[in-house]
This record gives sequence, C-alpha cells and structure tokens, in this order.
Amino acid sequence: MSELVDYMQQLGKRAKAAARVIASADTGVKNKALDVMASEIELRQKTILDANALDMKAGKDNGLDEALLDRLELNEERVQAMAEGLRQIIALPDPVGEISHVNARPSGIKVGQMRVPLGVIGIIYESRPNVTADAAALCLKSGNASILRGGSEAKHSNQAIAACISKGLEAAGLPVEVVQVIETTDREAVGELIRMEDSVDVIIPRGGKGLIERITKEARVPVIKHLHGVCHVYIDDKADKEMAKSIAFNAKTQRYGTCNTMETLLVAEGIADNILPELAAMYQAENVELRGCDRTCQILPTCIKATDADWDEEYLAPILSIRVVGDIDAAMDHIHHHSSGHTETIVTDDYSNSMRFLREVDSSSVMVNASTRFADGFEYGLGGEIGISTNKLHARGPVGLEGLTTQKYIVFGEGHIRQ
Amino acid sequence: MSELVDYMQQLGKRAKAAARVIASADTGVKNKALDVMASEIELRQKTILDANALDMKAGKDNGLDEALLDRLELNEERVQAMAEGLRQIIALPDPVGEISHVNARPSGIKVGQMRVPLGVIGIIYESRPNVTADAAALCLKSGNASILRGGSEAKHSNQAIAACISKGLEAAGLPVEVVQVIETTDREAVGELIRMEDSVDVIIPRGGKGLIERITKEARVPVIKHLHGVCHVYIDDKADKEMAKSIAFNAKTQRYGTCNTMETLLVAEGIADNILPELAAMYQAENVELRGCDRTCQILPTCIKATDADWDEEYLAPILSIRVVGDIDAAMDHIHHHSSGHTETIVTDDYSNSMRFLREVDSSSVMVNASTRFADGFEYGLGGEIGISTNKLHARGPVGLEGLTTQKYIVFGEGHIRQ
Repeated sequence: MSELVDYMQQLGKRAKAAARVIASADTGVKNKALDVMASEIELRQKTILDANALDMKAGKDNGLDEALLDRLELNEERVQAMAEGLRQIIALPDPVGEISHVNARPSGIKVGQMRVPLGVIGIIYESRPNVTADAAALCLKSGNASILRGGSEAKHSNQAIAACISKGLEAAGLPVEVVQVIETTDREAVGELIRMEDSVDVIIPRGGKGLIERITKEARVPVIKHLHGVCHVYIDDKADKEMAKSIAFNAKTQRYGTCNTMETLLVAEGIADNILPELAAMYQAENVELRGCDRTCQILPTCIKATDADWDEEYLAPILSIRVVGDIDAAMDHIHHHSSGHTETIVTDDYSNSMRFLREVDSSSVMVNASTRFADGFEYGLGGEIGISTNKLHARGPVGLEGLTTQKYIVFGEGHIRQ
Repeated sequence: MSELVDYMQQLGKRAKAAARVIASADTGVKNKALDVMASEIELRQKTILDANALDMKAGKDNGLDEALLDRLELNEERVQAMAEGLRQIIALPDPVGEISHVNARPSGIKVGQMRVPLGVIGIIYESRPNVTADAAALCLKSGNASILRGGSEAKHSNQAIAACISKGLEAAGLPVEVVQVIETTDREAVGELIRMEDSVDVIIPRGGKGLIERITKEARVPVIKHLHGVCHVYIDDKADKEMAKSIAFNAKTQRYGTCNTMETLLVAEGIADNILPELAAMYQAENVELRGCDRTCQILPTCIKATDADWDEEYLAPILSIRVVGDIDAAMDHIHHHSSGHTETIVTDDYSNSMRFLREVDSSSVMVNASTRFADGFEYGLGGEIGISTNKLHARGPVGLEGLTTQKYIVFGEGHIRQ
C-alpha cells in the first residue's frame, strides 16, 4: 500500500470512529464547539491573515488569475464574516433526533422515522478558504464527521483555520477527528477519498464544472453534485409587461457570476414585439451582449445571431441568449432539452399556465413571477447551504442542515412478534 | 455503435419521452391503466401459464436448482395474486404533486416543496415473474417511466405479463413506452442500462448479493441498493425474560430465508446464564444450528464454536450465531462492526438503554421490543415495497411509492426581484 493510500485510509478510519461520537452529541455540546471556533478565528485573525499572505504570494508567483486570487484572498472583514457565519449556524435548529410520523400499525407496533446524520462527509473545494470553516460547521451541526480537502493554493490559510476548528472541538470535549483537513496537496488524495466507500458516506464537491464532472465519473462514494446552472425565464404572453421586464432584468443583471443567474430568456411570440425592444434597451444600458434566435434578431436588429451552442451555455457573464417561442409548450420543450435542471421561472398572470409550469418543469427550483436569483439556501430559509444540488436523489436544490441528514425507521414494540 | 448499444439507447430515449407524459398524468388515468392491467392478467391467465411452462421446461433442462424453479413457477393462485397486487396499488394514495412546507420569506416570496417523480427507473431482477407486474405498477403509480430487465430464465413469462401491461397503458391513453420490458437476454444489456446516465435516473436491482455488488460497482446511474441483511437482536440484562425468548425465537424461526431474519443473537452477560439454556432448547426443537462465542459454549455445551466469519454471515438458513456481551455498549460495538445496516432490535425494560439503542444504532430500521421480522413495507404501512434500501442517501429501509419520488422547490412570487 502506498504511503498516500495508507494516510487516507487512516484518515477514513478516524473519521468513522469520530462519526459515532458526534452523531449522538447533544446540541449544546456542538454549539459550544462552534462558539469556541468563532472566538478562536477572531483571536487568531493575524495568524490566519499571515498564512493567507503566504498563499496569496505563491498564487501571484504561480500566475493565478485575478478572479481566483480574489476568491483566495482574506482580509479582516472576511475573517470576521467567517466567525459570524459560525455563530449563525449555532442559531439554527438541530435537525438530528427529530422523530416524525409515528403511527400504530394493525399488528400493534408503532412505526416512525428518526432523523440521523449521514456519517462521514467528504468535501472537496477550491480556493475560497472560508469554505473550510463553513463546511466544517454545517457538517458538525448536523452530527456528521467531515474530511475536508481544499485547494492546494489555499493550503496555509486552510491549516490556520483548521487549527481554530480543532480548538473548538477540544473545548467542547469532542474528538478532533470530527473535522479533519487533509494536509497533503497530492492530487491523488482526492482520487482516493472518493473511492473510500467503507469510511465515507457522501462526497460534496464545490467547484467548477470540470472538477465536479471528474469526481462524479470516478467516485465510488455517492456524490451530492451541483453541475451548473443554465437557468431560464419564460415570459408568457399573459405576463404583466412591467413585472416581466423587472424580473428578466433582475435575473440577468443582479449578479452575473452566480449559478442562479438567468442565461436564456424565452419570450412568447404574442408579447415579443411589445416587450423585447424595451428589455433590450435595459440590457444594453448595462452592456449585456444579446444573442438571439432568428425571430429575436428581426425584432432587435442589433442582436447577434445565437448558435446552437448558446442554448446550452452557462455564460456567468454579461451575455444573454434570447429565444422567441410559440407558447408555454414550446417554452417547456426548450427547457426540457437545454436546462441543467437548476432553476426556471415563468412570468404570467394566467393561472393554468402557472400551475402547468410548476408541475411540469423538472428542475430543482421552479418559480412563478419571481427572479431566479432567489434560488439559494439563505433566501429559502435554510439558514445556510453547503451547495445547491442538481441531483434528483436525496437532496435537490439548496442543501442545508437537513440535506446532510437521513432518516431511519424506528419501531416501538411491547413484545410484538410477527404472526 | 453496436446493435445492442443502439437498441438500449433507443429504449432510453423513448423512456425519457414517456416519463414527461406519465409525470403529469392524473391519478385517475394511472389507476385506470392499473385496473385494466389487472383484468388483462386475469383474462390471459392461460397465455401467461403457457409461457411460464416454457420457462419452467427450459429451467429444468438447464438444471436450475429447486429454489430457483420455485421462484420462477407461476400457477393460477400466483397469477391471481399478481392481479390483486395491482389492485392494491390502485388503492394507495398518489404521492405526486403533494405540496408541503410553503412559508413566506422576509423577501416576500413563498417557498415550498412539491413531490415529483424521479423520471426513468431501471429495475434489474431475477427469476420471479411477478416482479414484472409489481415493479411496473409501483413505478407507474409514482409517475415514473420504467425499464424492466428480468432474468433470462423468465423471458417468456415476463413478455406475457408485459403484453398485459401494454394493454393497460393503451386503455388509459398512455404511451406504451411508460413501461418497457427489455427483450434481449444479452447480458450486456444490463451493463449498458446502468451506464445510461442521460436517460435513466435511478437503478433498483432486486436479487442476490452478487448481482447487487456487481451493479453497484459498474453503475454510473445512482443505485438504490439492498445489499443483505445481517440483523441482530440484543437481549439486555434488563429484558423481560419471556418477551426476550418470544422475540428472539420469532426473529429467527418465523422465516429463515428473508433479509429481516435475525442472524446473530447478542445476550447481555447478566442474563445469559438464565435465558440461554431455555432459548437453546426452543431453537433445537426447530433444528436450528447454534454457533456461539466461548462464553455461549460454556453455558450451552452442545453449541458449536463460532468462527470470526460467522459474525458477518447472512445464513438465510436455520443457523444462528450467539454472542454474550458485557453490556449495551459492547452490543452496539458488535453491531457497528458486523451489521449490514438493515435491522436491529433491543429487548429491554430499561428506558435509557432503549433510547440509546434507538439513537445510536445506525441501521435502516431500529426497534425496541419487537421482532426484526416486522421490517418490511407492508408491515410499516407503505402498502407495498419495491425493495428495502440499505443506502443512507435518499431512501433508507423499505421503499414504497414515496421512495420513488423526489421533491423540488417551488416559489410563488408576485413580481419579486432580488435586492
């Protein structure tokens, strides 16, 4: 067995042992650990910033691009936000131990379900060091042990934050193995982690499409994945024009780089002539590049002609593709073929179209008369999110504490036997 | 592309198209299809039995063992039971479309969840032809399209049943591609099916451990798996002796070949001397072979000494391994290391031990003072089951209609945009 495999196997064994302890830890104990972690992060702000400076210097030397460096960088404000994030998780209700649906059966047994942690969660992420604190805290609060694997570009920052996490666990009398940050930057560690089905219960990758596709392909452990967001707004011909303009504008321009940003606008033929010129003017004032179907280009002569590839593109940029469609059926057909299953919105005042859209569109979030930008854990009231799942099984959409748990059946008998 | 791959890809495409139709079909339409299927099965009883006779003859010629032939065999009673099974599924509530947890958020949007089908379900099973009707019906009622792959030994029976299913779908005006039974007996069809991640949403294998391990290993599509059942009964030293004897006897002897049968009995040191001789006499009267730890063999001189392998064995036979343990912690340690995560029971009158066992034992069903034999979909009130999941993610324990669905977020806005 290679040294790396041995190192990872030991990590897995320790995580599995720690998982049994944290699974039955009381809420107060978990909150105590989170509270000390937050204080330690504040106390050690200088150490964390010094470590981050090392990462930033190495990043610049290695020619990381500006966007990556921005995600990597910590400052006093960001360190403070990390501590605050932990305190917000203290305030969330503990999902573990909830008993529901207990019913008496004809045999006399009482059957119900109890919410329990998943066990050991592996998190694989890139650049942002705050994920170390955030992910560790969500896993801890939901009673899970975690194995964290951050990007090698953030290794000093992550280890400095990991030290604060350990202090918190110790102060609460919990094993420090409840949260383990992988120290080696060997890329093979990821390959090993995602195949450790005996000790890891689920893998959550947070990063670009390339990372997630590679992990999904090679993993033996189940993956809660978030592939990408090709989100749609469909303006029905029964839409209120001002509302439609406001939502379509907000869904694209409120932030360009997020997964819940609209990438394709679908407009019903019956309202296209009327609404598109005004909307185009709004987008053009923000320098959003418009790429349209033939009909769109007729209405908007300055529009660039969209290619087939545009309909499947997650731009994450001030670019929008626009397609005029016959009706709601054509809109839903387009979504069926091109959506990534993240978030879609209909703008309409027609009751039956709104109901059909909600029922028939197969995405993790389906909305009526609201901006796609609302699709996240905070806006939905989950208090936080470890990611947005485009899986259908288990957790779908924003994943909060409950998505990090599962339910087991519990049976209360009084000596009952099967006849 | 080989002919087989092409055949399977076409099957997948048709299933995906049919899934959109069945996902939004009304309950009445789905029930109509089920009702006609049941009648067709009764009407075509002779055709089905003739087809089955062909399979039975081939099975005997090929030297299938008695147990396999018994599972393969249909008779009038079994055909009638198949039709009755379909009618029972008509009576179950339709899980699709249920809207829950709708709450207003500070932004003004209302966020909730809607229960929706998974999409396309692939079922891979062996010998029993009744699974064809049963699995098709559960998938249909939960709004899913299904692709069924039965054992080659049951091919004539399965095709005869498939013809009844098609009649039912046609009568209800549904596409016949909602249920597709794979016709080729080429083993590679399974290998292809479990990798069709673009058109299949989940694979449910029903069969022996070998089949399921192979599928889990090779699948790219998520698998709801049921590996095996190494179930435990722990008799606490605070147990009522008569209750403990009754449950431990029932859990082993009520049926030997089921996955929820107890395979290992754990007995607390404090009660072992008192209870084991009486229990052993009961088992020996049923010719159950006992294999014990050293302490058990001291108490029961006729007991065979268990080997290390016994603690991990699913006997599915009149064999029981018995271990004397110090206390509940030692019992839970044994379960942690040897259980397959299916079902475990504690027999005790001690409140805090019962609560600890329920909370800390990490299995799909955890029971107090009841026989492990209760762990199934009918006893739990699910009305039916497509299998018992030993997965932690998504569905855990007996999987009924709800386990064949997922939830998406729905958002009701009135022109809301993100600030």
